[in-house]
Amino acid sequence: MTGKRSHAAARSLIYGIHPVQETLKVGRRRVDAVYLSRVFKRDSPLHGLLEQRETRVKRVSDEELSRMAGTPNHQGICAGTEPFPYHSLDEIIEPEDLPSHVLVILDEIQDPGNLGNIIRSAECLGAAGVVLSRDRSAAVTPAVEKVAAGASAHIPIARVVNVARALENLKREGYWIFAAEMTAGHTWFSAQLGGKTAFVLGSEAKGIRRLVREKCDLSISIPLVGRIDSLNVAQAATVLLAEALRQRTVESGKPED
Amino acid sequence: MTGKRSHAAARSLIYGIHPVQETLKVGRRRVDAVYLSRVFKRDSPLHGLLEQRETRVKRVSDEELSRMAGTPNHQGICAGTEPFPYHSLDEIIEPEDLPSHVLVILDEIQDPGNLGNIIRSAECLGAAGVVLSRDRSAAVTPAVEKVAAGASAHIPIARVVNVARALENLKREGYWIFAAEMTAGHTWFSAQLGGKTAFVLGSEAKGIRRLVREKCDLSISIPLVGRIDSLNVAQAATVLLAEALRQRTVESGKPED
Repeated sequence: MTGKRSHAAARSLIYGIHPVQETLKVGRRRVDAVYLSRVFKRDSPLHGLLEQRETRVKRVSDEELSRMAGTPNHQGICAGTEPFPYHSLDEIIEPEDLPSHVLVILDEIQDPGNLGNIIRSAECLGAAGVVLSRDRSAAVTPAVEKVAAGASAHIPIARVVNVARALENLKREGYWIFAAEMTAGHTWFSAQLGGKTAFVLGSEAKGIRRLVREKCDLSISIPLVGRIDSLNVAQAATVLLAEALRQRTVESGKPED
Repeated sequence: MTGKRSHAAARSLIYGIHPVQETLKVGRRRVDAVYLSRVFKRDSPLHGLLEQRETRVKRVSDEELSRMAGTPNHQGICAGTEPFPYHSLDEIIEPEDLPSHVLVILDEIQDPGNLGNIIRSAECLGAAGVVLSRDRSAAVTPAVEKVAAGASAHIPIARVVNVARALENLKREGYWIFAAEMTAGHTWFSAQLGGKTAFVLGSEAKGIRRLVREKCDLSISIPLVGRIDSLNVAQAATVLLAEALRQRTVESGKPED
């Protein structure tokens, strides 16, 4: 009985075409079964993947899918999987074939939509990984994975208990730690972002905690030239990631167009 | 009877602290009454504004606010207002004291969250205005204004029936029209974005319509270096707006930090 319970507790139910498709494609996370709407197209690219992975597929009603997902936002597909497989910080930074040496560190981000969007931008703009504070932070839930549109299956994501200590480790590894703040001395594009770069972003309401801030090497900001004073944290992260990509591209001397 | 109905239909109910506060602050849109949760703090900065504007304030229950807003996401405040006051395209580009000559043109953007985020980024990063296609497009609803966090009270937003014709008008005014596409010859930062610049972004599913695309001067893209192939449209718009701001700042010769 206890065994059954803990087995049930250790399953996750992700939903949406991209999260399920990319999870199957990557193949790192066990998928027990995929539940498809009775009206889900039979010629979708997903079907080849389901056959290839020999995944158990069950057709269910849309109502049943909404009940399983806890939202009608499932696009006709759910999958029973292992819980989200977090990486360790070491696993993120050790591989030799990293897409870049850019990391995003999120200090107590609260909003699942923001977390999902940051994961999506980080993957699309070539970051090596995302690091979350474990406590008082949105976790990588199925809702976050839906917003991330499949990116969470690809980019490694770590959860750390102590963000300040994680930054110390990164500094020992040669990373420059940039605190993204509302107002700071350095304009975002004037900082050198082409090397080992970690962007730290704080919670929507409170920003970066003081003890975390003290471990950062430099504060950077996106000067807001409008009449409201807050760029959304996911948009701010995306601007920083894009600027790091711009600087890497320019420095690599690849033709720009 | 008819008169009463059309009066009722012509009211809008916005919600959330920032949308209500910025609408009151700007003072361009008539606010009939503000409905506050019984637990809404009495010393909030909003109260000075309500007194100054001599706004009728009514205390109601949180349940009543949720019913009025149609969502529990009201932060304890709703306001009965005029419908959202769209500008005309001419009203956007004619003033002499524009914050910049950067416009965002949205061709059939569907998702209210994306529209809200784009409006917020456009305002924060100093765009002069946002232009929407009138048909098959998300409109500026109270839900959009909530996501835009008060930005919609400041930045002018126009709705046009014919996007292609609007682009022709902008070209006559000296604007360069950039089509943001998934894959395009020009990398986003290699284009000259410091002058009169209009970014055209298409719908989440279909991109820019062909007849609209044909009116653009140049295609630009944000090369995606990850393993999923789509940056969210709001994130893409934000990257372009930030790059235009970077180029304006660099060209103006202002100290960068």
